[in-house]
Amino acid sequence: MRKLVGIGVGPGAEDLITLRALRYLERADHIFAPNNRGKTRAYDIVKDFVDEEKVVFLDFPMGEDLRGVYEDTARLIDETTKEGEVSVLITLGDGTIYTTLLEVFHRDSLNDIRMELVPGIPAFLAGINGIVEALVKKGDSFLLMDSLKDEEGLTADTVAILKTTRSGDTFHRLKAAGYYSLYLENIETDHWVMTDNPEKCKDRKAYMSLILARREPWNMAAILNRIGDRIEVL
Amino acid sequence: MRKLVGIGVGPGAEDLITLRALRYLERADHIFAPNNRGKTRAYDIVKDFVDEEKVVFLDFPMGEDLRGVYEDTARLIDETTKEGEVSVLITLGDGTIYTTLLEVFHRDSLNDIRMELVPGIPAFLAGINGIVEALVKKGDSFLLMDSLKDEEGLTADTVAILKTTRSGDTFHRLKAAGYYSLYLENIETDHWVMTDNPEKCKDRKAYMSLILARREPWNMAAILNRIGDRIEVL
Repeated sequence: MRKLVGIGVGPGAEDLITLRALRYLERADHIFAPNNRGKTRAYDIVKDFVDEEKVVFLDFPMGEDLRGVYEDTARLIDETTKEGEVSVLITLGDGTIYTTLLEVFHRDSLNDIRMELVPGIPAFLAGINGIVEALVKKGDSFLLMDSLKDEEGLTADTVAILKTTRSGDTFHRLKAAGYYSLYLENIETDHWVMTDNPEKCKDRKAYMSLILARREPWNMAAILNRIGDRIEVL
Repeated sequence: MRKLVGIGVGPGAEDLITLRALRYLERADHIFAPNNRGKTRAYDIVKDFVDEEKVVFLDFPMGEDLRGVYEDTARLIDETTKEGEVSVLITLGDGTIYTTLLEVFHRDSLNDIRMELVPGIPAFLAGINGIVEALVKKGDSFLLMDSLKDEEGLTADTVAILKTTRSGDTFHRLKAAGYYSLYLENIETDHWVMTDNPEKCKDRKAYMSLILARREPWNMAAILNRIGDRIEVL
């Protein structure tokens, strides 16, 4: 049997990977890691746990049509993984959420390899845990998006919008729809910052950022009292 | 300084806890664990990692008004946690999602204790990873609920409904709204089962169950080919 394991390595801290992820990283025969224009964020999280000689970097340019790249990657994994071997493909956060990982896994060229995904902590979950608040209380709903399209139709009690580029504008649109927003950036890294002030985040352009919004105001004083200095408030 | 750490221990497998959770469980001075009518599911996941003598079980009867219980629990944690000590409170899944953990953390009696939450893998995420499918693709949205109230207004591409009791009925209502459903039960345990057949799940009453539904049909043949025998299909 040949096996391919997709591993979500979480948002940024090396100790937020699971024990199962660690076990697979240590015993894998080949470790595939994305390289986006010189940034290897997923690999940076796990590099202390892996044998460097087993690592193959995959060039995934961002924002382009990558179907050909995914096909080539699937074929490379298929050719590299010999009978009895385990290959691992890592990704930031979780492999099922807005990721390219499954685009590779679902290629026909990998039809005869056994697959497994190891879930990882997604950034929105690390963010809400970081501020010790509820994502959803009993009876509430939570909506996850990668951009704010139609705020008029929003009914969810809490929403998360990933990789926000026009955060100030999004704050204002959400406010008009009855939501209170928090901007979080570089969650679970040494540069973890947050703000509830649209002026402070409107010009920030961070790939690793998100907005958490809910119908109930955030009590910043209570949040700061609980968390101490783990997160810098802008 | 005194510290209280809330730990999400994931859906059911002991190796789905994070390295950070393991470190806190090993070094904690006191470990508080919920006991729901004799069931200690969260503790069962981590029991191999903790010193039994440090464990305090908390009686959390399900479904009742528990404000008094939460207040008493917060006071017990406050009294037990001495200067310089770390107390831990564990919960199934993640502590910010439909959980009682934050009801305890947010009591005024814990105002002078530093707090931290360690995120855990929620069941809906373990479920979708288990079948090697996407929760959300680029441009899509995901809605999390603890019951299906108004399927008419549903616009999300993927939805998860937790702890389903009338699953057959929910399948039919979701089908009428344009969704294809999967029922998953006891995710990441030895009794992990799934089905896309409403007749097979309509009479099941499992606390640890959920429905994943999306607008695109599930390709069961492809899913089974990928996952092998990790999950029993009803």
